Amino acid sequence: MKKICVLGAGSWGSALALSLAKKGYNVMMWTLSQEQADKINTTKENIDYLPGVLFPNNIELTTNIEEAVRDSRLIILAVPSQAIRSVCKQIKEFVKPNQILVDVAKGLEKGTGFRLSQVCGEELPENPYVVLSGPSHAEEVAKDIPTTLVVGSEDLEIAQEVQDIFMSPKLRVYTNPDVIGVELGGALKNIIAFGAGICDGLGYGDNTKAALMTRGIREIARLGTALGADANTFSGLSGIGDLIVTCTSMHSRNRRAGILIGQGKSLDETLKEVKMVVEGITATEVAYEVSKKMNIDMPITSAIYSVLHDGKNANEVVVNLMMRSKKHEIEEIVDDKLGF
Amino acid sequence: MKKICVLGAGSWGSALALSLAKKGYNVMMWTLSQEQADKINTTKENIDYLPGVLFPNNIELTTNIEEAVRDSRLIILAVPSQAIRSVCKQIKEFVKPNQILVDVAKGLEKGTGFRLSQVCGEELPENPYVVLSGPSHAEEVAKDIPTTLVVGSEDLEIAQEVQDIFMSPKLRVYTNPDVIGVELGGALKNIIAFGAGICDGLGYGDNTKAALMTRGIREIARLGTALGADANTFSGLSGIGDLIVTCTSMHSRNRRAGILIGQGKSLDETLKEVKMVVEGITATEVAYEVSKKMNIDMPITSAIYSVLHDGKNANEVVVNLMMRSKKHEIEEIVDDKLGF
Repeated sequence: MKKICVLGAGSWGSALALSLAKKGYNVMMWTLSQEQADKINTTKENIDYLPGVLFPNNIELTTNIEEAVRDSRLIILAVPSQAIRSVCKQIKEFVKPNQILVDVAKGLEKGTGFRLSQVCGEELPENPYVVLSGPSHAEEVAKDIPTTLVVGSEDLEIAQEVQDIFMSPKLRVYTNPDVIGVELGGALKNIIAFGAGICDGLGYGDNTKAALMTRGIREIARLGTALGADANTFSGLSGIGDLIVTCTSMHSRNRRAGILIGQGKSLDETLKEVKMVVEGITATEVAYEVSKKMNIDMPITSAIYSVLHDGKNANEVVVNLMMRSKKHEIEEIVDDKLGF
Repeated sequence: MKKICVLGAGSWGSALALSLAKKGYNVMMWTLSQEQADKINTTKENIDYLPGVLFPNNIELTTNIEEAVRDSRLIILAVPSQAIRSVCKQIKEFVKPNQILVDVAKGLEKGTGFRLSQVCGEELPENPYVVLSGPSHAEEVAKDIPTTLVVGSEDLEIAQEVQDIFMSPKLRVYTNPDVIGVELGGALKNIIAFGAGICDGLGYGDNTKAALMTRGIREIARLGTALGADANTFSGLSGIGDLIVTCTSMHSRNRRAGILIGQGKSLDETLKEVKMVVEGITATEVAYEVSKKMNIDMPITSAIYSVLHDGKNANEVVVNLMMRSKKHEIEEIVDDKLGF
C-alpha cells in the first residue's frame, strides 16, 4: 500500500490524513513541534486542532521532514499559505521530480501577491503541482459528512490520479484544468467572507449577505478572468461553493474579523482581538491594487478597502454601494442582445 | 404622484407595497377577503403576513380588483403562482394595454409546466410583462434591510422604468434581459431548497449543503439553457443568490418539507404536516419529466424524484450521488482544453 505524507498538522491536514488512512494508505504527517508529534502519536488524537476524532494506527507523526517526504507519491502541503515557500525550500534538496505537490492552503503570498502554484513553481519547478479546494470544514470531513472537493491541475493524468486517491463514499472529487481559477477562488473568497462579517456586524440580514456573496463572486470572477482564469470556475465548488460554506460558518476568522469592523472597531483593534492572520485583509489589499492597475471594476472590494484603510464608515459605504449608478445584472448577456 | 396596485396581500406583496409607499407612491392592494381588507385598513398592519410593521396612509386595501387596477401603470402580481392565471382572467376585460404586469410569484403552472410569463402571455398578450426576483425575505425588506432585486424584461425601456420605480437606498434593482432565466431560477431553486432540507433532515453538515447548492444550480442551469435561458443568469441574484437565501432560511416551506422527508417521513405524511403547497415538489416533478424528455443529465433532481416517488431511501441516494462515475467539474471548460 502506498505511503502519503502531509506537511502540517493543523485541522485540515489532519482531516485529509484521516480520510486517506481510512482508505488504507499509510500516512506520515510532519510537524515542527516535537511536543505535538509525541502527543498525537501517544494519544492518537490531535486535541488542539481536531478534537474528538481518533487517529488510526496507519497515521504517524514525525518532525523529520525528509523521512515524511521519502517515497511518498503525494506531498500534501497543509501549512499556512505564508509558510508554503519555506516548506518548499526545506524539501528542495531531497524531493524527487515524480513526487506530486498537492496544495491545500488557500491564499496569496504577501509581498509578491503570487498564487501558491507560482511560489511552488519557483521553488520546485520540476514537480507536478495540483491544488485541492472546495467547500470543506475539516471537522465535517473528519466526521465522514459527505463532502465534495475539486482538484485543479493542468495535467489530466495527474488530476485523475489524485482524484482516485482521495475519492470515497464520503468524499467526492471533481477535476478542473483551470488551476488559476481554483487558486484564486480559494484565496479571494476571503474578501467576501470578511465583507459578510461586516454586514453581520452592522446588523444586516440574509438578503444583504446573499447579495454580497452573489455580486462579490462576480467581481472576483472579473478579476480572475483578467488574470487568466475561466469565469465558470468561480461558480463552481472552489468559488461560490467554498464562499457559501465560509460565509455561513462561525469558525471563519475572516468573518469574525469583519463582524468587529462592522461593529465599529478599528483595523488595529480588530487585529489585536482576533490575534491571528486574517487572510481576507491581505486578499483585499492585493485584489484592490491589482484591480486598480488593470482597471477592473470591483466595487465591493474597493468599498471594503476604503473601510479598512481610508477610515470610511461601513454603514455609509453600504448606502453608496446600493445607490451607485444603475446596472444591468450581467454585462456579458447584455452585450449579446441588440438594443439592451 | 403615480398610483401602483398590488394584487395579493401576502407578505411579499405587503413588503413591496410598503417600499413603494415610502417612496411616495399611492399603493392600492387587492385581496379576496373583505375581512382582511377591513382589518388592514383599520389597524394599519398586516398582522397575519407581516406583523410588526406599520402601513402608512398611502397604502389602501380593496376587494374591488377593477378599482385596484384602474390607472395603475404597474400591476404587481403578488398571488401564489397557481393563482396567476385566474387573476389574469379576472382583470382581462378592463386592463389597458399600456399597463405593465410585474410578476413577483415564483413557480411553474401545474399541469402545463408553463412559466408565469407564458401564462400571462396567453391571458394578456397585449401587456408588457416583467418578472421581479432575487434574494429577498419579505420581513427584511419591510425592515429596510439592504436588499437587491433583478427585473427580467426583454424590453430595455420597460425594464428601466420598473427599475426606477423600485430603486431606493435600501433596494438596489438590476436589469436582466433574460426573462426565461430569471423565471426558471426562481421556480427551480425550490428543488434544491427541498434537497437542502433533506440533507438537514439526514443530519448532514454545511459541506454537503454547499455542494448540493453549487452542483444543484449547475444542473438547473443545464436545464435552463436547454429551455432558452442564458447560463450566466443562474449565477446571478435570481439564481444562486435566491438559492442561498432560501437554503439558509428557517421560513422556507420547501426546506421544512425536505427536513421531514430526510427524517424518514413519507411524502403523504410530509404534505399533511406542512399543510401548504410545497413548490419544490411540483418543480421536481416538472424538471424531472422535462429532463427525461430532453435527455438532460440532472442527477440531483432525479435523486430527489426517486426519494419522493420510487420510495428510495434518502441516505442511500446520497451515497449513490457521491459514488457515481468520476467527473470533470465543468464540462464547458474541459471541452475547451485539448487533452482534457
